[in-house]
Amino acid sequence: MTVKHDGEARARMVTTAADLFARRGYHATGLNQILEESGAPKGSLYHYFPAGKEELAAAALSVAGREILATMDTVFEGSESVTAAMETLTRVFEGRMRDSGYQLGCPVATTALEEAATNDRLRAVSREIYHAWSARFARALVAAGWPEERAAALGVLLLACVQGAFLLSRVERDLAPMETVARELELLVSRSQAGRESAPAEGDG
Amino acid sequence: MTVKHDGEARARMVTTAADLFARRGYHATGLNQILEESGAPKGSLYHYFPAGKEELAAAALSVAGREILATMDTVFEGSESVTAAMETLTRVFEGRMRDSGYQLGCPVATTALEEAATNDRLRAVSREIYHAWSARFARALVAAGWPEERAAALGVLLLACVQGAFLLSRVERDLAPMETVARELELLVSRSQAGRESAPAEGDG
Repeated sequence: MTVKHDGEARARMVTTAADLFARRGYHATGLNQILEESGAPKGSLYHYFPAGKEELAAAALSVAGREILATMDTVFEGSESVTAAMETLTRVFEGRMRDSGYQLGCPVATTALEEAATNDRLRAVSREIYHAWSARFARALVAAGWPEERAAALGVLLLACVQGAFLLSRVERDLAPMETVARELELLVSRSQAGRESAPAEGDG
Repeated sequence: MTVKHDGEARARMVTTAADLFARRGYHATGLNQILEESGAPKGSLYHYFPAGKEELAAAALSVAGREILATMDTVFEGSESVTAAMETLTRVFEGRMRDSGYQLGCPVATTALEEAATNDRLRAVSREIYHAWSARFARALVAAGWPEERAAALGVLLLACVQGAFLLSRVERDLAPMETVARELELLVSRSQAGRESAPAEGDG
């Protein structure tokens, strides 16, 4: 096999790595497995990622983070309300788990938890991704009339709920925990809106 | 060093393993490191855990799960209301993170995420622990007057929020995400109670 360096080989390596890290985490995924599954020649890894696995993982998390962000953009832009968007996002996240036999959930969480204590680079990349996601939730809430500060805080709550729901549903191999979390959160938010006039009433209630 | 088999050596091995798995996860933690840090003689691992690392991890997760459950019991039994208990639990969980330099969060989540796709034994142990924790939340809610079905669902939501908050605060190395999640959840629940009479009003409001 000849070593051919092209952008496509790099991209394939990154998406393969992102997929494997999402399924089994950072430490269980070997570089050889990434090379093998991506069909990349052995020499190409250190050509594209001189710092090795950590650098590849940083790129893989970033790509996975941007993909989820793009999905959020599409869903929020195509929805009548935050409630409707959250329902659609829940379906998308559930499909991601179900279609992969519950191997895929949040593409960042496993690596983030493994490396939070010891790897500042991967922790920084994870933090940036989570900031971007919670900020996207917040932006949708502001557009729906929530005050900025409250929207920022609710964005963090929504992200925490999504993360917890991914974890519990993957461990359960069942959509029930994510369904429950989504339904209870929606109930609380809608009843909270009924209880206080300071929260906006949404278009579709 | 002579190989001396006693219950205390086994217990030390299990708590050391639980601590290391909580900090760095299942795959990054080597058996040699567990033996070294627990001061256990090499021969004792397969004496106590013939199936090796997986069996040790199952025991370690169970012990860590029961410890958190015992903490929940203490806090719920000593609190005037679910709201007060959740505030105390939040302080306990925050202390756990802060005092360990954000190395400790949920002692189960990292291993659960790493192994959910491939290891049925560790997945089953994680699932049981999460069931016990969400059931403990539900029991406190029932005691506070919530209907059983709603309490069970809210128990899952509370657990998901705790898990998401641990993840985000560890990645941030800051208590802010857990603070925000706790505050927003409390706001939603109290306003939801104001909005609907079907939810009980708690003693301390």
